Amino acid sequence: MQELKDRILVDGEVIGSNILKVDSFLNHQLDPAFIMRMGEELARRFTDAGITRVLTVEASGIVVASAVGLTLGVPVVFAKKKKASTQNDVYRSQIYSFTRQESVDITVTKRYLRSDDTVLIIDDFLAHGEALKGLVDIVKQSGARLAGAGIVIEKRFQRGAERLRAEGMRIEALAAIEAMEPGNIRFA
Amino acid sequence: MQELKDRILVDGEVIGSNILKVDSFLNHQLDPAFIMRMGEELARRFTDAGITRVLTVEASGIVVASAVGLTLGVPVVFAKKKKASTQNDVYRSQIYSFTRQESVDITVTKRYLRSDDTVLIIDDFLAHGEALKGLVDIVKQSGARLAGAGIVIEKRFQRGAERLRAEGMRIEALAAIEAMEPGNIRFA
Repeated sequence: MQELKDRILVDGEVIGSNILKVDSFLNHQLDPAFIMRMGEELARRFTDAGITRVLTVEASGIVVASAVGLTLGVPVVFAKKKKASTQNDVYRSQIYSFTRQESVDITVTKRYLRSDDTVLIIDDFLAHGEALKGLVDIVKQSGARLAGAGIVIEKRFQRGAERLRAEGMRIEALAAIEAMEPGNIRFA
Repeated sequence: MQELKDRILVDGEVIGSNILKVDSFLNHQLDPAFIMRMGEELARRFTDAGITRVLTVEASGIVVASAVGLTLGVPVVFAKKKKASTQNDVYRSQIYSFTRQESVDITVTKRYLRSDDTVLIIDDFLAHGEALKGLVDIVKQSGARLAGAGIVIEKRFQRGAERLRAEGMRIEALAAIEAMEPGNIRFA
């Protein structure tokens, strides 16, 4: 999506070799109209996939997921992050955050993800793929069909999606970054 | 907003005397079209207030705030929750969560809230008012003008807004609950 690439080049801030901050429109301040256009574009790519539910994880992914759900006319479920949880009416997985260097449990209440659902996973970033793998795990537990994942920004050099794509999972990114360093971002 | 009251009566789950779970459309699963209508209604109530920025706090408030920002055509900023923070390019306040029984720092990067802004605070719930007071504190630090707050569900019996309203702050709620117990919710 050219508008997103342009925006990343103008507003994105590369820190070190791995962190891309897009706080001006996605991760701290939101540009609601732009987020709606990104949601519409992600929805367009999965129009014919028979999606019945969108799944994401709090916090930044929620607003993009909601734009996708609005466009497709389906509900959105966001997995909750918890320190630890002993509820048994939930699907539970664990994700490791390389940025925060800690593991968190993510949970989805069982009644909001059903075996007859066709699920589209949405997230803002795909880097090492930890969050995505946790969400895929939860979809598998539910018995629902996984249609694929729609990502705003894929940092392809961190190779998180490689194994999932090799297994046949469809992963669409609005912008995929092949390499970056301060002052220089190269898209795939 | 009658549609919201009806939805709370059908889907809301009262736990004990203080907790209202609306996980089916707001706090875990989202109904994107309904959230858009709620955002439009909150925006309508502040149409003539000259809002230049919407402020909320992660996580559940973000999607309603984004709908308000989309309708008003202004950016949305969400305060981030952190355990503790030593950054000095941020406005910082502290909020106490009665539900989680812990305090968290909330921060807003200074460049996303300016002294010439007119700010509308949006949040999903208003109970004891801790989150709202923290957000008001951050607006004060920034020197921006505070137009008021738009809330989805006010649990008025927890009296969080009483002092703020007495001081002249405008607080609009789409649904205000005067009393509740399992099986019985009375709106103001």
